[in-house]
Amino acid sequence: MHYLKQDYIYLKHYARTNALAAFKSDTMSEIGGMADIALGCARESELHVKMCGDWGITRQEMEQEQESWASVAYTRYILDKGTSSDLLELLVAMYPCLLGYGEAAVCQINDTETVKEGNEYWPWISNYADEHFQEAVRKGRQQIEDLVQQETPSEARLKRLLKTFVDTTALEIKFWDSALEF
Amino acid sequence: MHYLKQDYIYLKHYARTNALAAFKSDTMSEIGGMADIALGCARESELHVKMCGDWGITRQEMEQEQESWASVAYTRYILDKGTSSDLLELLVAMYPCLLGYGEAAVCQINDTETVKEGNEYWPWISNYADEHFQEAVRKGRQQIEDLVQQETPSEARLKRLLKTFVDTTALEIKFWDSALEF
Amino acid sequence: MHYLKQDYIYLKHYARTNALAAFKSDTMSEIGGMADIALGCARESELHVKMCGDWGITRQEMEQEQESWASVAYTRYILDKGTSSDLLELLVAMYPCLLGYGEAAVCQINDTETVKEGNEYWPWISNYADEHFQEAVRKGRQQIEDLVQQETPSEARLKRLLKTFVDTTALEIKFWDSALEF
Amino acid sequence: MHYLKQDYIYLKHYARTNALAAFKSDTMSEIGGMADIALGCARESELHVKMCGDWGITRQEMEQEQESWASVAYTRYILDKGTSSDLLELLVAMYPCLLGYGEAAVCQINDTETVKEGNEYWPWISNYADEHFQEAVRKGRQQIEDLVQQETPSEARLKRLLKTFVDTTALEIKFWDSALEF
Repeated sequence: MHYLKQDYIYLKHYARTNALAAFKSDTMSEIGGMADIALGCARESELHVKMCGDWGITRQEMEQEQESWASVAYTRYILDKGTSSDLLELLVAMYPCLLGYGEAAVCQINDTETVKEGNEYWPWISNYADEHFQEAVRKGRQQIEDLVQQETPSEARLKRLLKTFVDTTALEIKFWDSALEF
Repeated sequence: MHYLKQDYIYLKHYARTNALAAFKSDTMSEIGGMADIALGCARESELHVKMCGDWGITRQEMEQEQESWASVAYTRYILDKGTSSDLLELLVAMYPCLLGYGEAAVCQINDTETVKEGNEYWPWISNYADEHFQEAVRKGRQQIEDLVQQETPSEARLKRLLKTFVDTTALEIKFWDSALEF
Repeated sequence: MHYLKQDYIYLKHYARTNALAAFKSDTMSEIGGMADIALGCARESELHVKMCGDWGITRQEMEQEQESWASVAYTRYILDKGTSSDLLELLVAMYPCLLGYGEAAVCQINDTETVKEGNEYWPWISNYADEHFQEAVRKGRQQIEDLVQQETPSEARLKRLLKTFVDTTALEIKFWDSALEF
Repeated sequence: MHYLKQDYIYLKHYARTNALAAFKSDTMSEIGGMADIALGCARESELHVKMCGDWGITRQEMEQEQESWASVAYTRYILDKGTSSDLLELLVAMYPCLLGYGEAAVCQINDTETVKEGNEYWPWISNYADEHFQEAVRKGRQQIEDLVQQETPSEARLKRLLKTFVDTTALEIKFWDSALEF
C-alpha cells in the first residue's frame, strides 16, 4: 500500500520524463509517440487511484503523500540526465524501469507459485504483463536500438551510457527495496 | 502552400512546447492534459500532410523544408520562456497562437464573403473553427485564469507577463505576414 | 575523507546549479553574479583536491568516486526545481546549503571546544567561516528577499516555496548523516 | 549605436548560453571554464555600456531597448539547441559567433584602409582583435575538436551538426545585416 502510493508519485515523475523526451525529439512521429506514453502514465495511474480507493485511501491523500528519498534519487537522476544530455542518454536512463516492470510481471505470471485468485495485487501485476505493456517494452527497446544504430556511439560514449544504465538500475532496485524496508 | 509547409514545422515546435509544459506541471491531470495537446498536434499535422499530399508534396519534402526565420523567432522565443521561467509564463507565451487561430477561424466562418464551396483551404479553416478546437481554446484560457487566481501575480510580475503576451502576439503576426511576403 | 570526496562531487553539481540560475536570470548583473558563484565553486573545489592530495588521494580518484545516493537525491532535487520552476524556487532550493555551511562553520569557530591546532579539517572549516563565504551567504539571502519583495508570492506559492525549503533542508541533513553512516 | 544596443542584448543571451553550457558540463574544470566565459560576457558588456554612455544613452535605456527579431531568432535558436540536445551540439551552435567576431576583428585590424585614429568604434573592434579574445576563440575551437575526437560522431550526427553550424552562421549574418537595415 505504501509502495502503491510511492509508485503513484514515481509514475507522475515518469510521465514528466516522457514529456521531456517528447520535447527533445526531432520528428513529429517521435514527439507524438513520447507524448502518448506520458498520457498513458496518467491513465495507468488511475489503476493506482482505484486500488488505493478500494483500501480507503483518497486521491487527495495520494497527492499529498511525502515522496520517499529513494523515489527522489531515482526520478530526479533520470530527469537530470535528460536535461543535461541528449535524447539517447535519457532513453537509456528510462529503460531499466520499462524493462524491469515488464520482466518482473512476466516472471510473476509464469511462476507457478504465484497466487492469482484472491490476490488483491493481481490487477496491478497483470497490467504490466499484458500485451499492451509488453508492446511498450518492445517499442522502447527498438527506439534505443534505432538511435544507437544511427549514432554509432564511440567507446567513450558507450562507457558513459553503460554507467547511466548501471546507475539507474541500482536506483530502481533501491526504490523497490525501500518498499520492503517500510 | 508555402505557409502550410511552414505551419507544419511550426506545429512540430508547438507540440514540443506542450510537451515542455507537461514536464513543468505538478499534478497528474495537468501532465496528462498537456501531453494530450502535444499528441493532438501530431494528429492535427496529419491534415497538413494530407493537404500537401493532394498538391503533390511528399511527407519527406515537408520534413526537409527549411524553416523560415519568422518561425524560428516565434517558436524558440516561446520555448525559451518555458525553460527560463515557470509554467504560467510558458502558458501566457503559448496563448496568442491558440487564441489567434481560434478567433481567425471563427471570423472566417462567420464572414458571409468567405468562399466555402470549392475552397481548397476549407478543411483547414474549419478544423480550427470546429467545436474540438474551440473547446481547446476555452480550456487553455481557463488554465491561465486558474493559475493567475492561485498565484495572484504582483504588479511587477503582471508587467512581465504582459510583455511576454505582447511580444508573442507580435511574433505571431510576423509569422503570418511572412507567408504573404513569400 | 569519504565525506570530502562526496562533498567534491556535491560541489560539482552545486556549481551546475548556480550555472542554471545564471541561465534563468534576466539582467546582466544577475547573470554575472551567479556565474561568479559557479566559478567560485570550481575554485573552492581545489581546496578539496589539495586536502585529499595530502592524504594520498589523486584528483582522478576523486573524479571517479561513485556518488552516494544521498548526494544524488539532494542535488538532483534542487536541479529539478530549477528546470521545472522559476528562479525564485531554485534560489530557495539552494538556500539550505548556503545557510547550513555558513551557520555550521561559524558555530564551530565560536565553539570553545573546537580543536583548531593540529586539526586537519581546520582549513576546510575556516574556509566557510571566513568573511568571503559569509558575504556570499548574506548576498544569497538578500537576493531571495529582493525577489520575494518584487514578486509578493501568494499564499499558495509561499506554501510551495516553504515545502521546497523544508524538503531541501531534510535532504541536506540526510547528506551530512550519510557521511557518518559510512 | 542601434547595433551596440542590440549587441548588448545579444551579449546577455550569449552569457546565458555559456551558463547553460556550464550546467551541461561533466567535469569541474569544464564547468568553471564555461562559467568564466559567462562572467567575461558580463564584463565585456561594460564596454558597451561605457561607449553608449559616451553618446548619452543610459544603462537603463539599454536594458529597456526592444530586442530585434533577428536577435530573438539567433539567440533562442542556439539556446533551444542547448536545451534539446547535448553539449557538443550547443558548442557548435555557439561557434559562428565566437569565430565570426574573432575573424572580423582581425580582418579590420589588418586592413590598411581601416581608420584607427578618431574612430569611435575603435575600442570595440580592438577588444575582439586583442590577444584575450583571440585566445578565447582558440580555446573554443579546441574544446569542440576534443569533444569530436572523444565522440567520433556518426555520419548522420555530423550532418546534423553541420546543419546547426550552417543555420547559426546564416542567423549571425542576418543579425549583422539587421544593423544596416535599421
